[in-house]
Amino acid sequence: MLQKNINICLSPDLIHLYEVKNKVVVVTDIFRATSCMVTGLANGIASFTPIATISECAHLQSLGYIAAAERDAKKVDGFELDNSPFSYMDPLLKGKNIAMTTTNGTLSISKVKKDAAQVLVGAFLNIETIANYLIEQNEDLIILCAGWKGTPSLEDSLFGGALVDLLKSNFKIADDSATMTYRLFKEAKNDLRAYLQEASHLKRLSGLGIEKDIDFCLTRELYSVLPILIEDKLVLK
Amino acid sequence: MLQKNINICLSPDLIHLYEVKNKVVVVTDIFRATSCMVTGLANGIASFTPIATISECAHLQSLGYIAAAERDAKKVDGFELDNSPFSYMDPLLKGKNIAMTTTNGTLSISKVKKDAAQVLVGAFLNIETIANYLIEQNEDLIILCAGWKGTPSLEDSLFGGALVDLLKSNFKIADDSATMTYRLFKEAKNDLRAYLQEASHLKRLSGLGIEKDIDFCLTRELYSVLPILIEDKLVLK
Repeated sequence: MLQKNINICLSPDLIHLYEVKNKVVVVTDIFRATSCMVTGLANGIASFTPIATISECAHLQSLGYIAAAERDAKKVDGFELDNSPFSYMDPLLKGKNIAMTTTNGTLSISKVKKDAAQVLVGAFLNIETIANYLIEQNEDLIILCAGWKGTPSLEDSLFGGALVDLLKSNFKIADDSATMTYRLFKEAKNDLRAYLQEASHLKRLSGLGIEKDIDFCLTRELYSVLPILIEDKLVLK
Repeated sequence: MLQKNINICLSPDLIHLYEVKNKVVVVTDIFRATSCMVTGLANGIASFTPIATISECAHLQSLGYIAAAERDAKKVDGFELDNSPFSYMDPLLKGKNIAMTTTNGTLSISKVKKDAAQVLVGAFLNIETIANYLIEQNEDLIILCAGWKGTPSLEDSLFGGALVDLLKSNFKIADDSATMTYRLFKEAKNDLRAYLQEASHLKRLSGLGIEKDIDFCLTRELYSVLPILIEDKLVLK
């Protein structure tokens, strides 16, 4: 069997450099879009439809979706849900379909959904389930880090490195971004929270008083679920 | 005095995300364009004119420039000089003007030259001179890593981190890319050569039999020179 490759794309603004076709893409936006999606699906939400723009999100809202819209880490007026994972544990949301647009995460999904063989959503919350599934697939892998408005972010890079750590016996590390994030993760892994103290997005979020979201999003394998994009909806496999 | 910021841009394909105006930009392409430029200027070459395309380079050649053209780490047929720093030590080149196009480095310079307050060229070969000069400037700093065809590279990232290490008392680390490269450099600094063993561009170059270029390009402060772009020419300040 040919060895499968891992590439890490540190920003959706670099994804045009990667051949996405026939590959599995794992999109991650640790603080907080993909952590919300994993949490919601694990708690009974039927689906998330990731949307790139506010106006498309409003359109789906008018069709009966529950709408979540975040820009600059804050909820957009006129939409039901914010970008905190705790909001997606509400029992009243069970069985519902959510339309979601966020600054970075849903934009990243929208950039790869047409071409990739499979699009999965990963977070520390489901990292082991994701890794075990990827080991069973035959395709090369691209981990797409959502970052912050196009620039790479420390937390998404560390997730990439953590996934490389779990996959390195089964995949070949195929680019320097994968090497770099893996080395950063190895240095960080004994205390991710402390290592992230200087992360710019953590500073952004701290100002909003959502420290508990941070600790929650760094919890490893709390939910053994596999969110996968089928047509335009993210559902559990 | 307001504290100055350092941002690191890991790829020329991300430079549109940064406000370049009124900033000092240090462009680096360790293997090997900026190492060649530093070496050449330190050895008496009068100027380098960085060119984005092969055809523009051929045009300057027809006007009497000595032309250097590299693509995919190899010399392009019809041009005089390759991309090895040793080629730029030739005493016959003293006082000459070079037109140079490379896969990554000269493209990066061309992307910032119109807007930046100053464009400098940095390499490990002149890192301390660059750092001392930057400390005296009043502007914010962007370190632009040339990478490889748009993707980030380990060696350019480590140079960014090494420069952050020299500047951290005088500048504020302003983004996660600067944090990440600084941490990678701290881990790597005792043996850069060994740390780079997995770098993809090193593998690319090893196949071309230019190991001695690698060791040379990693030599620290061999030349205490400051290459700066004046109009379209890179000259010594």
